[in-house]
Amino acid sequence: MAQKKMILDLDTGIDDSLAIAYALASEEVDLIGITSTYGNVITTQAGQNSLQILELLGRTDIPVYLGLPHSSTTDHFDVMQVSKDIHGVNGIGEVILPPAQRAVESTTAVDFLIESAHQYGDDLIIVPTGPMTNLAAALKKAPEITALVGNVTFMGGALTVPGNVTEVGEANINQDPAAADQVLRSQFDLTMVGLDVTLRTLLTKQETQLWRDLGTKASVAFANIVDYYIDAYAALNPQLHGCALHDPLAVGVAIDPSLVQTIGLNMKVETVAPFAARTVGDVERLNQATTNVNVAVNVDVPGYLHRFMHRLTALFAQQ
Amino acid sequence: MAQKKMILDLDTGIDDSLAIAYALASEEVDLIGITSTYGNVITTQAGQNSLQILELLGRTDIPVYLGLPHSSTTDHFDVMQVSKDIHGVNGIGEVILPPAQRAVESTTAVDFLIESAHQYGDDLIIVPTGPMTNLAAALKKAPEITALVGNVTFMGGALTVPGNVTEVGEANINQDPAAADQVLRSQFDLTMVGLDVTLRTLLTKQETQLWRDLGTKASVAFANIVDYYIDAYAALNPQLHGCALHDPLAVGVAIDPSLVQTIGLNMKVETVAPFAARTVGDVERLNQATTNVNVAVNVDVPGYLHRFMHRLTALFAQQ
Repeated sequence: MAQKKMILDLDTGIDDSLAIAYALASEEVDLIGITSTYGNVITTQAGQNSLQILELLGRTDIPVYLGLPHSSTTDHFDVMQVSKDIHGVNGIGEVILPPAQRAVESTTAVDFLIESAHQYGDDLIIVPTGPMTNLAAALKKAPEITALVGNVTFMGGALTVPGNVTEVGEANINQDPAAADQVLRSQFDLTMVGLDVTLRTLLTKQETQLWRDLGTKASVAFANIVDYYIDAYAALNPQLHGCALHDPLAVGVAIDPSLVQTIGLNMKVETVAPFAARTVGDVERLNQATTNVNVAVNVDVPGYLHRFMHRLTALFAQQ
Repeated sequence: MAQKKMILDLDTGIDDSLAIAYALASEEVDLIGITSTYGNVITTQAGQNSLQILELLGRTDIPVYLGLPHSSTTDHFDVMQVSKDIHGVNGIGEVILPPAQRAVESTTAVDFLIESAHQYGDDLIIVPTGPMTNLAAALKKAPEITALVGNVTFMGGALTVPGNVTEVGEANINQDPAAADQVLRSQFDLTMVGLDVTLRTLLTKQETQLWRDLGTKASVAFANIVDYYIDAYAALNPQLHGCALHDPLAVGVAIDPSLVQTIGLNMKVETVAPFAARTVGDVERLNQATTNVNVAVNVDVPGYLHRFMHRLTALFAQQ
């Protein structure tokens, strides 16, 4: 099997850090770069966190690019209190990692996305796990990329369950509903990994204890980072009995779509309150012969969790 | 194959009339009774319309029962203007059928549902295509019926597409969200046939012309009734290019679930505005080992339409 090229577009965050680890631990893909966006933290912090996580995992060969600092319809971004509660003010559970020895690239995230689409075409998978702002900007600047890129697998949205910031709005989509609407209505080949499935793949301190027991630098750091996230979930979502593996599930599905049951749907994103950020089927395009979004509606929970722990534990053991 | 027993719970209406015809035309089921509810018309009118449609189709052996006149949370019901626009003031497209020679039964709809559940148990399929008021009342009066009845296949709700009376609310569920919530949270074995699929199975005047050309009493009456409905859809939903076969699709799926792709989900119904009547997954029960609702999310459109026309045309040719 030829290795696919992957770009992660991250508001790095705790589960974003797990997404980096999952991608690095997966031989099926070559992580060619990480682009940064705002959400769990501000964009520059996301970039620094990505650099630090890459250094922790010994992968200083992977470039990091800065994306846009705020949504397509605002001129400013402030981190929401709930994001600080879940990810910590620094985005990685208040764990202090050594300052990054590298800097972000001078190329912008948007240009890197466009250049990579042209360079790798069908071999490229883009995995946004934050707001769709960077990808929508790339789409606006270079509309031809929709026909070039192999697949976009995004963490975001909620089709069959309520949202997590409003009754209908999931946090990533809610940051920039207009950008998400542009991406979902585009001709990208899209896979949606939303709350429908990510609220089913849960990690507990039983698993992070296994990392802690490994005793490597990376395994202990990740145990500490993820325990912060598990504690936040215990406070905010006690009924789940664990923390949701949102972003690493998107990477897992991007690599192996057979992990999820999907339905094909032409979708839109509502942009007007109180229904803003709802990801939903577009009746105007319901009876078209083809669909551009495969929405994950069920997931092989034990299969994914086994793979997640197998891969990440092996990766952390080496560092 | 043993014949299943079927009860239709109808707010008879045009597509409800097609549901009666589909059930009568299907050898797989024995229609043991029709219960009446409010919605497209008031409950007593629904009862009269059911009696008239049964007489038109030569089936005066099938009893009709009157259900509750209004929702579980109100003390009155008025037909909405949009219902009159779609179904006509008389509910059957202003077509005048001969007055029914029979009367409704003295047993109430609720008692008939409960008695039938006890009599037929697992062999019984209940198909509500209006508000859930009668079924919720039966559930309240005799909670044991959830474990007795084989299956409840209902037309209502919208999981993957917007509602048709509000952004999130489908017309049937919207009449009595509290009743629907009680049914969806119950232990009934449920199949949801909502707008997700019914907006895909569309009939046009090409098909009704085939009935008109047959020249029988029933075929001409149904052509006239359904043409009213097609005209209403052309005015209200021109993008669909046809009328939605909501209620007869539910009967088709109740008889042959292989017509639809379903996902298993534990659901709830929102009861508070502006999200009232939304049918959606219940995160509190998302990770339970079993699910009680199979939600239809895709449908074999040509397969269903072929079967629909084959069965109804054969039935109408005899009357």
